[in-house]
Amino acid sequence: MSGLFITMEGTDGAGKSTQLNLLNDYLKNKGFNVVFVREPGGTKISEKIRDIILDIDNQEMHYMTETLLYASSRAQLVNQVILPELKKGSVILCDRFVDSSIVYQGIARNIGIDIVKKINNIATGGLIPDITFFLDLSPEKAIERKKEQKELDRLESEKMYFYKSVYNGYQKLIEQDSERIKVIDATQSIQKIHQNIIDNLEKMFF
Amino acid sequence: MSGLFITMEGTDGAGKSTQLNLLNDYLKNKGFNVVFVREPGGTKISEKIRDIILDIDNQEMHYMTETLLYASSRAQLVNQVILPELKKGSVILCDRFVDSSIVYQGIARNIGIDIVKKINNIATGGLIPDITFFLDLSPEKAIERKKEQKELDRLESEKMYFYKSVYNGYQKLIEQDSERIKVIDATQSIQKIHQNIIDNLEKMFF
Repeated sequence: MSGLFITMEGTDGAGKSTQLNLLNDYLKNKGFNVVFVREPGGTKISEKIRDIILDIDNQEMHYMTETLLYASSRAQLVNQVILPELKKGSVILCDRFVDSSIVYQGIARNIGIDIVKKINNIATGGLIPDITFFLDLSPEKAIERKKEQKELDRLESEKMYFYKSVYNGYQKLIEQDSERIKVIDATQSIQKIHQNIIDNLEKMFF
Repeated sequence: MSGLFITMEGTDGAGKSTQLNLLNDYLKNKGFNVVFVREPGGTKISEKIRDIILDIDNQEMHYMTETLLYASSRAQLVNQVILPELKKGSVILCDRFVDSSIVYQGIARNIGIDIVKKINNIATGGLIPDITFFLDLSPEKAIERKKEQKELDRLESEKMYFYKSVYNGYQKLIEQDSERIKVIDATQSIQKIHQNIIDNLEKMFF
């Protein structure tokens, strides 16, 4: 593998999209071949799976079904895009990855960390990001930001306690893997957050 | 669990649908509450997953994605229908179940028996049918029967060698679990096959 695999994590509303777009521009300007994908999604098939996961009509979806759907979408993305692009030396920017499943399904949905890890280890062939940025925003502030937007999808319409368990879940992951997961204070200005991210990347890889 | 969980397996063209319909009628006439479902499918969400799996446009689907999609469809079916109905004492008639994934994805697609078992064990919570009927038809005859029909879907348009590995895969499963899986000669008349199935059921359960 000669490429670089970067993922962005955080609760909804933490500013992942904004930062990913800024990072995408930055890396392109540096001359890298950047492949920017989102999860669930990033391939035609994965986007179809995404539609099922996020469809607000599918309220009766069992958490195990949800867990396996995320893993299937991810298997397609890894095999069709991420692995071939890493081999070509590209930089992969991925909006969410296995960490999200561990936190959302494993912890917040109570499926269990080990089970979610096992499924995703099979789905991805054990692929781990080179570096992960966690945009750190308290659940209270995340909900507040989210409310300013108009429509909430099936997952976003969950209750406050869900946001809290997601946030606590991320804290657990960070404890276990503090070398890979870089915590970025998401209450800072957009430009400052962007600078933090770049500083981390330059220190480690460029 | 007070119900009865019956599954039907075999290569396409072996006559599963015909036999399931006959068995459904027979069990209903006997006064049982019968729930007849197919895999992948059997719930609204599982049918949506089925559409993705069988869509002939999704040729680029990775075998791991396929494996996980089957498992997710199954997780929903087990949790939403099969387990609650078994608790109520119903008889479940299921057109394909985990055995199909082991044979099609595990063996014929080369994902590996152990991996497919592991995923499905998680997806179903370890649920195993009480009895499984394998309609035994040679790959040559199965293909012949299939050709008489008009449209082939993505899976059915696979080559002869795939049919052969599926068939050999079933033989392996039968060797390992001959008590649960009853082999029925599918070259017999429809009525004779039906009688064989009923004889097995009556001997074991009624």
